[in-house]
Amino acid sequence: LLKELLKEQEPARIVEMIEELPHDEKIVVFRFLPKDTAAEVFSQLEKDDQMELLSLFKEDKLKEIIENMEPDDRADLLEELPANVVKRLLAHLSNEERQNTLILLNYPEYSAGRIMNPNFLDLKENMTVKEALQHIKNEGNKKETIYTLFVIDNTRKLKGTVELKDLIFSEEDEFVKNIMNENPTFSTVYDDEEVVARIMQDYDLLAIPVTDSEKRLVGIITIDDIVDVLEESATEDIQKMAAVGVTETSYFHTSIWELIKSRVIWLGALLLFESIAVFVIEGFSDVLQKITVLAAFMPTINAIGGNTGSQMSAIVIRSMAVGDIDDDDLKKVLARELFSSVILGIILGIIMFLRSIVNTREPLIMLSLSLSIIIVVIISNLLGVILPFFAKKIHLDPALISGPFISTLMDILSMFFYFSISVLLLKDML
Amino acid sequence: LLKELLKEQEPARIVEMIEELPHDEKIVVFRFLPKDTAAEVFSQLEKDDQMELLSLFKEDKLKEIIENMEPDDRADLLEELPANVVKRLLAHLSNEERQNTLILLNYPEYSAGRIMNPNFLDLKENMTVKEALQHIKNEGNKKETIYTLFVIDNTRKLKGTVELKDLIFSEEDEFVKNIMNENPTFSTVYDDEEVVARIMQDYDLLAIPVTDSEKRLVGIITIDDIVDVLEESATEDIQKMAAVGVTETSYFHTSIWELIKSRVIWLGALLLFESIAVFVIEGFSDVLQKITVLAAFMPTINAIGGNTGSQMSAIVIRSMAVGDIDDDDLKKVLARELFSSVILGIILGIIMFLRSIVNTREPLIMLSLSLSIIIVVIISNLLGVILPFFAKKIHLDPALISGPFISTLMDILSMFFYFSISVLLLKDML
Ligand SMILES: [Mg+2]
Ligand SMILES: [Mg+2]
Ligand SMILES: [Mg+2]
Ligand SMILES: [Mg+2]
Ligand SMILES: [Mg+2]
Ligand SMILES: [Mg+2]
Ligand SMILES: [Mg+2]
Ligand SMILES: [Mg+2]
Ligand SMILES: [Mg+2]
Ligand SMILES: [Mg+2]
Ligand SMILES: [Mg+2]
Ligand SMILES: [Mg+2]
Ligand SMILES: [Mg+2]
Repeated sequence: LLKELLKEQEPARIVEMIEELPHDEKIVVFRFLPKDTAAEVFSQLEKDDQMELLSLFKEDKLKEIIENMEPDDRADLLEELPANVVKRLLAHLSNEERQNTLILLNYPEYSAGRIMNPNFLDLKENMTVKEALQHIKNEGNKKETIYTLFVIDNTRKLKGTVELKDLIFSEEDEFVKNIMNENPTFSTVYDDEEVVARIMQDYDLLAIPVTDSEKRLVGIITIDDIVDVLEESATEDIQKMAAVGVTETSYFHTSIWELIKSRVIWLGALLLFESIAVFVIEGFSDVLQKITVLAAFMPTINAIGGNTGSQMSAIVIRSMAVGDIDDDDLKKVLARELFSSVILGIILGIIMFLRSIVNTREPLIMLSLSLSIIIVVIISNLLGVILPFFAKKIHLDPALISGPFISTLMDILSMFFYFSISVLLLKDML
Repeated sequence: LLKELLKEQEPARIVEMIEELPHDEKIVVFRFLPKDTAAEVFSQLEKDDQMELLSLFKEDKLKEIIENMEPDDRADLLEELPANVVKRLLAHLSNEERQNTLILLNYPEYSAGRIMNPNFLDLKENMTVKEALQHIKNEGNKKETIYTLFVIDNTRKLKGTVELKDLIFSEEDEFVKNIMNENPTFSTVYDDEEVVARIMQDYDLLAIPVTDSEKRLVGIITIDDIVDVLEESATEDIQKMAAVGVTETSYFHTSIWELIKSRVIWLGALLLFESIAVFVIEGFSDVLQKITVLAAFMPTINAIGGNTGSQMSAIVIRSMAVGDIDDDDLKKVLARELFSSVILGIILGIIMFLRSIVNTREPLIMLSLSLSIIIVVIISNLLGVILPFFAKKIHLDPALISGPFISTLMDILSMFFYFSISVLLLKDML
C-alpha cells in the first residue's frame, strides 16, 4: 500500500514528506521507492541527511541509488565527501558512469563543467525532422532533456541547437540544419556557474550547451539547476555582506558550532580592527575631557558613516552580481556617487545642525557636528563604491565588503575627522 | 542587410546590441524587426527605456508592438504607466487581448494572477496521445509553451498536467488521462509570486498552472519569469537589509535623484533615532568626565552590537525568504541562538578582556568592558532573531530589519548597558 501510494508522488513531494522523519524511517521509505525515484529523492535531500543515509543504506541499496543518480547530482554529492568514501562509492559504479563522474569532479568548484550533465541527446545536421523525432523517441527517455536538442558533427563539435517545438512545427522532410539555431548561446567548461546563470536568465533558455576549449560539446546545464545556482549565490552574497562566513547548508541543517565558527571569526577580527578607533579617540582625550558633549555624538557620527557605507556598498555589490555594473564602470559610478555623496552629505548635515540644538547651544559645536557629517557621508559613500571594485580587482568577492566591515573602517575614519574638525573649530574652547 | 542580420538574432542578443544606442536609433532598429521579435525585444528592455520609446513610436508601430506582446509582459508594462497612457494603449488592442490584459491587471501586484500568462494550451482527458499531438501541432505555435500541457474538463477545471515528453514516449492510442499527472502542483491567482517561485524551484517545474478559487485553470507561469521573480526578490531583500528603499530598475536606469531619495529617508530617520543614544550618553556625562578611557571604547561596544545583530538578522531573514525558517520556528531558533549568543558573548568578552590591557591596566575597567560585550552580544543576537519574526507577525517584510536599523537600536541599548555596568563596577573611582 505504502508502495502504491509513493509511486504516484513526485520526488519533491516525497522529500517534503520524509524530511521530518528520523533517518531509520527514511531508510524504510527508500525501500519502497522505484529506483529512479529513490535516486532523485536522495539527490534532493540536504547534504547532511545524504551523508547520514549513506552510512545507513545496505550495500545493494547504496549501489542502486548511486548508480541511478544523474551525473551532476552525483558529482555534487561526492565533492563534499572524504576521499575514502568517494573511492568506495565510485567502486559501485559502472565504468562509464564512473568516468562521467570523475570528469565532472575534475573541473573546479563553481565552474560550468562541475554542474553540467554529460547525459544529453545529440542530433546530426543532415537528419530530417522525421529522423530526429524518431531518434528522440528511441533515445530520449534516458536523457536529461529532450526539449532542447544539440546538433554536433562527427568530431563532436557543437553546430547548433534546436528546440523540440521547432521540430514539431516543421515539415517531416525538412533538414535539421535548416531549422536549427546556427549561432547558439553556449558556455565553456571553465565558465563560472554564475556567469552561465546570468546568460540563461537573459536568453530565457531551458538548457545551455557546455563545450570544451575546442568547442566539442561535453555536457548541458538545465534551468532547474541554474535556479539553484542563482539562489545559492544570492544567499552567499547576503551572508558575506552581513559578515557571516558562508554556510553550504540551510539553517537547521548547519550545526550550531559551525554557525558560531562562521560568525565569531568575523566578529573577533572586526573587534580587533576597531582597536584603531580606540587609539584615535585616546589621541583626542584632552579634547573630550574639556568638551564632553562631543562624546555624546560619537555614536551618531559613527552610525551615519556605517549606514551610508552599508547602503552604497550593498547597491554596488548587488548591481555587480546581477550584471548591471561591470568592471569598467568605476568611473561612471564614481561620477554619479560623488554627486550623490555631496547631496546626501548636505541634507544630513542640515538635519544634524538643526537636530543638535536640542543638546547644545554652542554654534561652533553645531557647525563641527554638521561638517563632520558631511565629510563622513562623502567618504563612506565613496568607499562604498571604491572598495567593491577594488576587491574585484584583486580577485576577492566584492560581497566581502560587508556592512559590518565598512562600518568598522568608517568608525576609525569618522572619529579621526570628527575630532580633527572639532579641534580646528573649537580651539578657543580648549 | 540590417534586416537580414537582425532576423537571425535572438531577442536577448538584440537587446544587448541596442541597449547602448540612443532612443532614436533604437526606433530605427525596431523598424527592421519582424513583429514578434520586435514585441519580444521591447518586452525585455528596462522600464525607463520602454517608457521613452512608447512616446517615440509612430502609432502603427506602437499598435503592432503592444498587440504582439505576451499578455504577462504587457501587464508588467502597463502597471507602471499613468492611467491615461494605459487607456490609450489598451485602445490599440483587440477586444480579446484587452480583456486578457485587464484581467491580469486586476490581480494584486506580486500575485500569481498578475504574472501568469492566460495563453496556454489545454487538452481534454479523453483525447488520445495521437489527438493530443495533433492538437499541439495545430494550436501550439501561438501558445506560451507546449512542453507542459494542461488537462481541463468542460467547466475548465484543472484535471491534470502532462509533459510533452510523456506524450512522445507513449503509445499513440493511449488516453491522455492515463498518462497525465492527476495530482499536479498548482498555484492560485492570489498566491504570492515568491511562494510560487519556491514551489517551482522545489518541484523543478518548467510551467505551473494557475487556477481561480473554483479550481478553474486561468493561466500558467513559466520558469523564465520565475527566475526573474527570484532575482528581483533577492535584490529587494538586499536593498531592504541595507536600509535602501527598493528601486524597481537597475542601477544605471534609476535616476540619481530617485536613488538619493530612496536612501536619504532611511539615513535621516536613523539619524534622528540615534538621538536617543545621545541622551543616554549625556545622562552618564559625569562618569565619562571622570573615566575618559570609557569614551575610547564606546565605538567598540557599539560596533560589536551592530555587527552581531546584522549577522543574526541577515541569517534569519534569508532563511525565512528561502523557506528554511517558517513562522512557527521562533522557539526552535531562539533556543539555538540563546545558546550561540552565550558562546559568542563569552568568546568575544574574553578577546575584549585580553585586548583591553593595551589601553588600561585597571582590572575593573577591563571587567566592565568584557561584561558589556557579553551582554550586548546576547541582546543583539536575540533581537536579530526576534525582530524579523515580529515584523512578519505584524505583516511587515522581515527584510526591513536592516543591519543599519538594528545597529542604531543596539547603539542605544549598548550605551545604556555599558555605562550602567561601568557605574556599578567602577563606583569607587567616581
Ligand atoms: Mg535534478
Ligand atoms: Mg556544490
Ligand atoms: Mg529571462
Ligand atoms: Mg541536473
Ligand atoms: Mg557561487
Ligand atoms: Mg558570488
Ligand atoms: Mg555602528
Ligand atoms: Mg518573456
Ligand atoms: Mg512588476
Ligand atoms: Mg529545484
Ligand atoms: Mg512570460
Ligand atoms: Mg517581490
Ligand atoms: Mg521579499
